[in-house]
Amino acid sequence: MKAWTLAARPKGLPVDTDFALVEQTLPDLAEGQVRVVNRWLSVDPYMRGRMNDTKSYVPPFQLGEPMQGGAIGEVVESKADGIAVGTMVSHMAGWRDEAVLPAQHVQPLPDIKADPQAFLGQFGMPGMTAYYGLLHVAEAKPGDTVFVSAAAGAVGSTVVQIAKAKGMTVIGSAGGAEKVEWVRQLGADAVIDYKSGTPVAEALGQVAPDGIDVYFDNVGGDHLDAALAHANPGARFAICGMIDVYNDAKPTSLKYLARLIGNRVRIQGFIVSDFKDHEGFYRDMAAMLAEGKLKREETVFEGLDKTPEAFLALFSGGNKGKMLVKL
Amino acid sequence: MKAWTLAARPKGLPVDTDFALVEQTLPDLAEGQVRVVNRWLSVDPYMRGRMNDTKSYVPPFQLGEPMQGGAIGEVVESKADGIAVGTMVSHMAGWRDEAVLPAQHVQPLPDIKADPQAFLGQFGMPGMTAYYGLLHVAEAKPGDTVFVSAAAGAVGSTVVQIAKAKGMTVIGSAGGAEKVEWVRQLGADAVIDYKSGTPVAEALGQVAPDGIDVYFDNVGGDHLDAALAHANPGARFAICGMIDVYNDAKPTSLKYLARLIGNRVRIQGFIVSDFKDHEGFYRDMAAMLAEGKLKREETVFEGLDKTPEAFLALFSGGNKGKMLVKL
Repeated sequence: MKAWTLAARPKGLPVDTDFALVEQTLPDLAEGQVRVVNRWLSVDPYMRGRMNDTKSYVPPFQLGEPMQGGAIGEVVESKADGIAVGTMVSHMAGWRDEAVLPAQHVQPLPDIKADPQAFLGQFGMPGMTAYYGLLHVAEAKPGDTVFVSAAAGAVGSTVVQIAKAKGMTVIGSAGGAEKVEWVRQLGADAVIDYKSGTPVAEALGQVAPDGIDVYFDNVGGDHLDAALAHANPGARFAICGMIDVYNDAKPTSLKYLARLIGNRVRIQGFIVSDFKDHEGFYRDMAAMLAEGKLKREETVFEGLDKTPEAFLALFSGGNKGKMLVKL
Repeated sequence: MKAWTLAARPKGLPVDTDFALVEQTLPDLAEGQVRVVNRWLSVDPYMRGRMNDTKSYVPPFQLGEPMQGGAIGEVVESKADGIAVGTMVSHMAGWRDEAVLPAQHVQPLPDIKADPQAFLGQFGMPGMTAYYGLLHVAEAKPGDTVFVSAAAGAVGSTVVQIAKAKGMTVIGSAGGAEKVEWVRQLGADAVIDYKSGTPVAEALGQVAPDGIDVYFDNVGGDHLDAALAHANPGARFAICGMIDVYNDAKPTSLKYLARLIGNRVRIQGFIVSDFKDHEGFYRDMAAMLAEGKLKREETVFEGLDKTPEAFLALFSGGNKGKMLVKL
């Protein structure tokens, strides 16, 4: 099998030489194991954090070892009870073409009529992040005005659609005319183009004259500051990512932070893996899919070779919807 | 009567000429009114916000009008049922020596054996801010490690003592050896001297090697950043003041903001006036006082003339405990 390893710990934005493709021989199957051939790999912004050697909520990648990440594969050999050859499974042995795994490390895809790769997106980690962040962390309610940054991304585009399906007013932010148009097609009531040159705080004030009740943060920085500037009393912010600082040691500069006092704003960081019970998520999302309320967009790179390139494109806004690698 | 008015809206730190002492004649009492001679005036950092002409949780002071603020006075004339001459009352007609007020705007002091001016401090707004912020907003629990900034101030010194009385480990921050020593005497397990030259984040790391569970913020800026740097998973921050930015339009620069994601930190702004039921507060605090667990310190300026001076001294760390003006 072939796998991408971390060759060097990146400083700032990773470069090609931080990654190395290696060939390894996989062991024969032991009892309780399955052999999986990967069909789809996920690349996600949070992986940047695992490339640093610092304590975090997920352990750092080890130098010279295959990296991990979400993947969808097909079971081609099985010594595990209840997992038949041919089963499509999701698992965390991404960044490689094939893996031998204990059965408890793979999850057969839920019985929802969606393409397999959707389980790396709307029906996978990014979708859960959107769902739990919006509804559980930010406690968004029908009638709320919701602002979501990176609204054309895997998480943000799902936030937009869930919020609309639940009767909220939605303002998205995206970079460039094409993404802005797509977010509008997803149902957003207004979309800010953060590349337009207008400061985000000013642009948000124009489209949200009555303020915002919820902010779903994928970005940090000027978007977070804009949300603080226009937060209504009792606003709730769900902070799931700050792509702005992943590659960068620069501090976040907030002009409007003190407004959180007078407006009783709640800012809550969260990690999707804290939410263990997915029954409500699958039920709600399957219903939205059946009602035609879930659109999906994918940006697909073809071939294992392209995995680092796909990953790096996340940080230059290179994806519309979920960024994927197809093997 | 004499009263301090706002003569000009300050830019940055107020100066003497922003205030003017005026003489006014009070009207005769109407039915339901009382005449109060003030004995003690409160000056508090939040008043700075009311000097700006911006929408906030309390309306701005009007130019040329007497300013408002907490005060304790004695009823010297009464046309109100149930409020006898000689009753000591708390009310918001501060910054002046005398006032005519409707009965519903004055509260007779609760039946707790404390000096009248304590109802501007530990048994008044600053004490409630400490109590509700620590126990309700931050949900601090016995065993938690609590970090509190401005720990020698009216709010902070009460936070320290409530936290110790409830079985928490307490780290305070204060400026200068004398205040540091006083905070230690209040029971703090460790005290950082933020004027020592050591960055707050570094100093906090030294005294809190296992991190903090709660941060009570009176300051903002580098103290908030230090708290983010050392927040334990699930940490709760109660943000009650940011004295750092009251006089200043400079942005807050945070190096450690993104840590709130991995550590699921909750940052909650609050306003003490949202907490309307004070029964538990008075009961708890009276019990602590009776057990000798509440020490009090006051910094007292004498005479109405000194009110602006007392107010301005708040922003240069001129107070130990509650800043008061005695008439």
